[in-house]
Amino acid sequence: MKNPFKDNIIIDGLQYCNWNRNLFEDVWKGGLTAIHVTTVYWENTKESFNKLKEWESLLLQNNDIICHAKNTQDILQAKKNNKVAIIFGFQNSAPIANDIFLVEKFFSKGLRFMQLTYNNQTALAGGCYEPNDSGVSRFGHAVIEEMNRLGMIIDLSHAGKKTCLEAIKVSSRPVAISHANPLFFHNSIRNIDEEVLKALVKKDGFIGLSLYPYHLKNHGDCKLEDFCEMINQLVNMIGIEHIGIGSDLCKNWNDDVVLWMRNGKWTKKTDYGESKTKSSSWPKQPSWFEKGSDIINIYKGLIKSGMKENNINKILGYNWLNFMKQNFG
Amino acid sequence: MKNPFKDNIIIDGLQYCNWNRNLFEDVWKGGLTAIHVTTVYWENTKESFNKLKEWESLLLQNNDIICHAKNTQDILQAKKNNKVAIIFGFQNSAPIANDIFLVEKFFSKGLRFMQLTYNNQTALAGGCYEPNDSGVSRFGHAVIEEMNRLGMIIDLSHAGKKTCLEAIKVSSRPVAISHANPLFFHNSIRNIDEEVLKALVKKDGFIGLSLYPYHLKNHGDCKLEDFCEMINQLVNMIGIEHIGIGSDLCKNWNDDVVLWMRNGKWTKKTDYGESKTKSSSWPKQPSWFEKGSDIINIYKGLIKSGMKENNINKILGYNWLNFMKQNFG
Repeated sequence: MKNPFKDNIIIDGLQYCNWNRNLFEDVWKGGLTAIHVTTVYWENTKESFNKLKEWESLLLQNNDIICHAKNTQDILQAKKNNKVAIIFGFQNSAPIANDIFLVEKFFSKGLRFMQLTYNNQTALAGGCYEPNDSGVSRFGHAVIEEMNRLGMIIDLSHAGKKTCLEAIKVSSRPVAISHANPLFFHNSIRNIDEEVLKALVKKDGFIGLSLYPYHLKNHGDCKLEDFCEMINQLVNMIGIEHIGIGSDLCKNWNDDVVLWMRNGKWTKKTDYGESKTKSSSWPKQPSWFEKGSDIINIYKGLIKSGMKENNINKILGYNWLNFMKQNFG
Repeated sequence: MKNPFKDNIIIDGLQYCNWNRNLFEDVWKGGLTAIHVTTVYWENTKESFNKLKEWESLLLQNNDIICHAKNTQDILQAKKNNKVAIIFGFQNSAPIANDIFLVEKFFSKGLRFMQLTYNNQTALAGGCYEPNDSGVSRFGHAVIEEMNRLGMIIDLSHAGKKTCLEAIKVSSRPVAISHANPLFFHNSIRNIDEEVLKALVKKDGFIGLSLYPYHLKNHGDCKLEDFCEMINQLVNMIGIEHIGIGSDLCKNWNDDVVLWMRNGKWTKKTDYGESKTKSSSWPKQPSWFEKGSDIINIYKGLIKSGMKENNINKILGYNWLNFMKQNFG
């Protein structure tokens, strides 16, 4: 089979890996055009600037196969240069603390995605694990306006439902849920119900579909056929233009990072997140999505499901590109 | 008249001054035993540690008339040594960001009061200016438990109503509203309604009554008689043991500090707080409470109102002392 990705744009809308040469080579050989990479969760301002600095080194050391993208032109140029474009994101607003002026400072370092919350409440909004979701706070409104002004994507993954609905309403640019699945596919606290999905797309918002086991039907035993069937159902529900992949792939981390993701420094106890067995190990990935280059299996699965190639190409990249264009401006 | 404060404990449960020798001499000559001083509002972790360091210098430079108090023994010892005891507090949780381990670090520097919120939502709870008060968040619950363990007073001034009710319920130690007035006295977003006052005292909580003009009937034109009448009414409503003074006196600041208090760095616009005339100047203090030593006028006013001296002494100091003993342990 000829490589179907050769002449297409392939974008993974969220990965959280402990990146090294092997991982970059995998996605480069696999034909990915761009990846939105998570740089921090709970890190404070200084730690977050340091993380972006570390990324500058990574980009330099691997500049034969990757490059930093700050807009969609950069992504298209990366494609021409046969490099994987890296887009920076924060999975939390911890880095800006209570300082709106930091939004632009991080933007100037290339940050293009920021979540208002990560599971818990922040000064901006409510998280999906909070018993009471505050919605968007006064500071949250101000930050959304600032992100809209700059062209930084408001990411509502890990937000509560009320926060999602309010942020969708308030934002003047379309917002993203970069990595989650529809609730009808699997009942997870992180997955998104029909009301939010419909409100999202009504304002040209976007959902990146997740391969993180806790978001999947049967977790790590999820079948490719089931995942592709879910995509077809979702297309019927909200239309094709608003759907992409945000794999939430986590590679090359020790197990202690699972606890870091769940607990940060916000509790002295141990929070196990969605693990009903109180596991603090990384969950098993589906056999057909164990690395970034496995996105080819989703292509194959969608072909098998009867989806037209043109539509598959939209879901695997062009939709993200169009959405990003609306934000990055 | 013999100085009625000579043999009594006089405590002001909150002041926010730009302290200097003159201000220290005023409260020292005025017979104050202890003052809870606000050190920060919106400052981040590093800035807050720096503020406490600046206080170490202030304490050293004025150690003939002031000293640092970390418990009620220190307050009693200060009285014996003819010094004013200084108790450190934060009017916000910004300094701990999302790091529960910072609570103990600040405690070890002498911090004994911390507000969960200052007007706006934080990662811990909802502020009184938020259209939607979140109540106490997951992190908020964890921090309350930590403050209870250490013996740091949970201060609910500037919190929303739902947050007040939840924090009162959740905290294993009695909590304080260090500076506010009952809502029946003056309809201010910062003043406290009967439901919260009754829930507060049911769990041995405490209210320090404020002299900040926006919290007073007729603002800066408030009459001493009206203020004292309010105290008598409040005693009838919630009993005498739970009431003290938290004057919220702000001295020696330029007007830009008013904007800093209201806006921090959370908005690029200008928020005018409770000023209906969009004033960004310090409001005019009542003529009978223009400096810390003017607490003597409240003593005189309460005498005139018919309150017994024994009860006045409770309100002007002994109640705070007893309340602090329950927290500082």
